[in-house]
Amino acid sequence: MNAPLNHALLPLFEPRPMPAQMLSALRERFGPRCSTVASVRDQHGRDESPFEVPPPEAVVFVESTAEVAAVVALAAQHKVPVIPFGVGSSLEGHLLAVQGGVSIDTSGMNRILQLNAEDLTVTVQPGVTRMQLNEEIRHSGLFFPIDPGANASLGGMTATRASGTNAVRYGTMRELVLALEVVTAQGEVIRTGTRAKKSSAGYDLTRLMVGSEGTLGVVTEITLKLFPQPESASAAVVHFPSVDAAVKVAIQTIQMGVPIARCELLDSNAVRFVNRHDKLQLRESPMLLMEFHGSPAGVAEQAQTVQDIAAEHGGEGFEWATTPEDRSRLWAARHRAYFAGMSANPGCRTVTTDACVPISRLAECIAQAVDQADASGLPYYIVGHVGDGNFHVAYLVDPLQPAQRERAEALNDALVHHAISLQGTCTGEHGIGLHKQGFLIDETGQAAVEMMRTIKRALDPHNILNPGKIFAL
Amino acid sequence: MNAPLNHALLPLFEPRPMPAQMLSALRERFGPRCSTVASVRDQHGRDESPFEVPPPEAVVFVESTAEVAAVVALAAQHKVPVIPFGVGSSLEGHLLAVQGGVSIDTSGMNRILQLNAEDLTVTVQPGVTRMQLNEEIRHSGLFFPIDPGANASLGGMTATRASGTNAVRYGTMRELVLALEVVTAQGEVIRTGTRAKKSSAGYDLTRLMVGSEGTLGVVTEITLKLFPQPESASAAVVHFPSVDAAVKVAIQTIQMGVPIARCELLDSNAVRFVNRHDKLQLRESPMLLMEFHGSPAGVAEQAQTVQDIAAEHGGEGFEWATTPEDRSRLWAARHRAYFAGMSANPGCRTVTTDACVPISRLAECIAQAVDQADASGLPYYIVGHVGDGNFHVAYLVDPLQPAQRERAEALNDALVHHAISLQGTCTGEHGIGLHKQGFLIDETGQAAVEMMRTIKRALDPHNILNPGKIFAL
Repeated sequence: MNAPLNHALLPLFEPRPMPAQMLSALRERFGPRCSTVASVRDQHGRDESPFEVPPPEAVVFVESTAEVAAVVALAAQHKVPVIPFGVGSSLEGHLLAVQGGVSIDTSGMNRILQLNAEDLTVTVQPGVTRMQLNEEIRHSGLFFPIDPGANASLGGMTATRASGTNAVRYGTMRELVLALEVVTAQGEVIRTGTRAKKSSAGYDLTRLMVGSEGTLGVVTEITLKLFPQPESASAAVVHFPSVDAAVKVAIQTIQMGVPIARCELLDSNAVRFVNRHDKLQLRESPMLLMEFHGSPAGVAEQAQTVQDIAAEHGGEGFEWATTPEDRSRLWAARHRAYFAGMSANPGCRTVTTDACVPISRLAECIAQAVDQADASGLPYYIVGHVGDGNFHVAYLVDPLQPAQRERAEALNDALVHHAISLQGTCTGEHGIGLHKQGFLIDETGQAAVEMMRTIKRALDPHNILNPGKIFAL
Repeated sequence: MNAPLNHALLPLFEPRPMPAQMLSALRERFGPRCSTVASVRDQHGRDESPFEVPPPEAVVFVESTAEVAAVVALAAQHKVPVIPFGVGSSLEGHLLAVQGGVSIDTSGMNRILQLNAEDLTVTVQPGVTRMQLNEEIRHSGLFFPIDPGANASLGGMTATRASGTNAVRYGTMRELVLALEVVTAQGEVIRTGTRAKKSSAGYDLTRLMVGSEGTLGVVTEITLKLFPQPESASAAVVHFPSVDAAVKVAIQTIQMGVPIARCELLDSNAVRFVNRHDKLQLRESPMLLMEFHGSPAGVAEQAQTVQDIAAEHGGEGFEWATTPEDRSRLWAARHRAYFAGMSANPGCRTVTTDACVPISRLAECIAQAVDQADASGLPYYIVGHVGDGNFHVAYLVDPLQPAQRERAEALNDALVHHAISLQGTCTGEHGIGLHKQGFLIDETGQAAVEMMRTIKRALDPHNILNPGKIFAL
C-alpha cells in the first residue's frame, strides 16, 4: 500500500490464502478459464484508484450463472473471498483483492437475454457494457440512458449505483434497475423484483443489491428500464464569465422544472485540457454543455427557456449541435476530460472528488472548492453533472511526490465535509470502495453504518463477498 | 379470525402479553396519551382489510421522535410488539395486532419540518397526510404527486411503498423518498440518505425501509421530492366500446413515451357505481380518465397524440376538464369508486386485487380477469392505474355468505398467478401485509423470501416490529 486510506480507517488487510484444494477444484471445472498467470491477476487487481495491493490469487472467467454459483459455493466452503469483475473502470478500489481470493471475471457473460421493446425493458448479463447494449438495441428505437463516461459493464454499474450525464432526466441505476438475478454468499441463485414497473411485494432486495459493491451478492442478470430514443435531440454549448454564473444557470433550470437531458459544467481548466486533447476550439471559459430531448417543439421550448436563463447570467456564444455527429463529438470530448487532464500533465494521477449536494447549495459548495483548489497550487479541473448537484474536482498529482497526494486528499476531505454540512453526500456516483469509508461514517452516522454491517454479517457470515469494501467488519 | 389467509400460510398468531411493568412505564411517561380504552384500541386494531383479530393492548399517541424511541426501547426490553399507525387506510391487515402489543399512533407527529422549495424537497413527520402536505406547500408553487386515493399518512405511504394515480409520470414512494429518520428495533435513531438527489454511499437503507411495512423500523421523519405545479393541466375522459380497447390505448400511449400524468381505467361497472354515488352523468361504458401536465403547448401536444391513438381504437366522446374545479370533481369521483361500489351493494365488503404486469401483458391479464369475474356471478368493478400496468378488480362480497368471499379469494388467486406468469407482481401498491404472504413466495421464490427473513432477524432479533407481516418468521 503506497496510498494512505482517509481517516486511517484501514479495513483489515488480512490475507486469506486459498487452499490448494480449492484451486484444483477451480482448475478442474474451468480448465484454462481459471488463470493464475501474474499478468492476468495483476490486470484484475487494479482499477482506476491509486491503491496498490497484491492481486487476487486466481481469476476465473465465468460464462453462466451456474458457473458463478459454483465459484461462490466453493469459496463459501473454503471461506475464501470472491470479487466480481466487469471492465475494471471503478474509481474507489472496489476491485482490489485486499484479502486475496478469486476475481470472478464476468466479461464472458455478455449476452442480451431478453429485449421487451413493447415494455421498455431489457434483461442482460452483467458483462454487457453500456455501449454494447445501446448498439444491440438501436434497431428497437429504444436506448439505455445511463452514461458514466467509461464504457462500464452493467454489472459494475449496478454494483456502484452508477449514474453520469443523463441521470438528471432519466435517473440513476437506483431508478432504472427493475429486477436482478443474484448469487448469494451461500452460492444460491435468487431473483429480486419482476418486470412490472412498480411493486409493493416485500423488502426491496433489488435496491439493496444496487450499490452494494459486490458485498451482498454477485449479480448475474439485470433487468433495466429503457426509453424511446427521443424524436428530437439537440446539444448546446454556452460560455460564462465565471463558474458561479454557469452553476446558477443550472440551478435555475432545474428549479423551473425544465426536463433537460444533460447539464454538464466544465471549468476553464477542463475546457483547456479537452481542447488540447481533442483538438477542439472551444472558448476557454466556464461552460455548460447541455442536451435537450423531446418532440421538436418541446426541445425548442426547453432550449429557449434555458437560453433566457443563461442570458440573465452573462451566458454567451450559445452554439448548437443538432446532428448526431456533432453531438457525439462534444460528448466524446467531455468524456475524455479524465484522460485529457492526465495527458496535459504527463506522469500525473488523478484524485477525483464526487460530492453531491442539494441543488440550492451547489454554487456555494463549488465556490469553496474552487477557492481551496486555487490556493493549493495543484493543477486541477472541474467537471460536473450540475443538474444533479454532483461535481468532480480532479486534482492532478505527481505520484513521486507523496505530499501532493496528501494535499489533494486534504482538499477532498474539506470538500466532503462541506458537502455533508450542506445536507449532501460524499459520493454521488462513484461509491465508497476503500477510499471513502471514513466519509460514509461522517455522512450517515455510526449507527446507520452499523445497520449496514449487521445486514452484511447476516447475509454473508463468512465475509467472502468482496470483503473490506464500504466498511471494515 | 373469521377470514382465512390465503395459502393457509398463517403467521403465528401467538399473543405476547404486555407485562404490567411496561404498561405502567408507558402510563407514567405518556399519561392520558397512553390509552387502553376499548374503543380506542378497536379503532387501532382494524384497517380496510377484512381480518378480525384482537386489538392492540394499548395505544400510545406520540408527539416526537424521542417518544417513539422511548416506546420502542421499552418494547425491546419487554419483547412486546409495536405497530406504527397513521390513519388506518391500509388494505392488507398491516395494522393488525396479530401478536398483541402497542399501537404507536403517529397522527400527532404532523408537522412539516423543512420545506426547501429551491431544492424541490420537503421533510415531514410521518403523521402528515398527503392532502395536508399539499395544502401547506401550495404557496411554494410545488406539489407532492403521489395520490393513492385515501388521504393516507406519509408514514403509512412510506411503509407500504404506495403509489396511485400520478405514479405513471412522477414515480412511487420508492422513487420519491429521498431520506428517512428511523427508530430501530433497539430504540436507536438513525438517518438514512441525504437531501442530495442521488448518492452511492453504501447500502440503500432508505429503499430497504420504504415498503418494509413497519417490520424493520419506525419511520419518524421523511424527506420527499416535490415537483413544480404544472404550468398547465388538463383532464380528459374518453369512452371505449370495450375494456380491451381502452387498455390498448393506455399501452400505446406509454409505449410512445407520452409523459402522461395520469391514465386511469374504469370499467362500465365502476362508471355506473360512480355515477350513482356522485350524481354524475358519465357514459356507462369502459372509460379512460387521463391527465396531462406541462407547458400549454406540451399539454396540447400530448393530448393530441393520445386523442389520435384513442380514435384508432374506437374511443369516443372525448371530454375535457381544464378548470381545477372540473378536474377535482372527476378525480374525486374516481377516488370514491371504492365507497361507491359498497354503497351500491349495501352490507357488502370489498375484496380488492392489486396485480401489476409489464404493460405489454396488461390487455391479456385484464381480459382473463374480466372473463373469470363475469363467470363468477359476483358483483365487481375494475379500476386501474393502467399506465403502470396496475389494476384493481374489486369483488363485492356479502360477509354473511362465506362462500362468496371464498369465490373472490379464488378469483384473486387465479389472477395473481396469471400476473406472476406474465412476469408481474401480486401487489403493485397495497403491500403484502397478512393477506399476500403466500403470493410473495410464489412471486419471488422461497430463497428470496428467506433473504428477507434473514434481514428481519438480524435487525429485529426479538421480532418486536410489526410481527407477522410480510412473512411468518
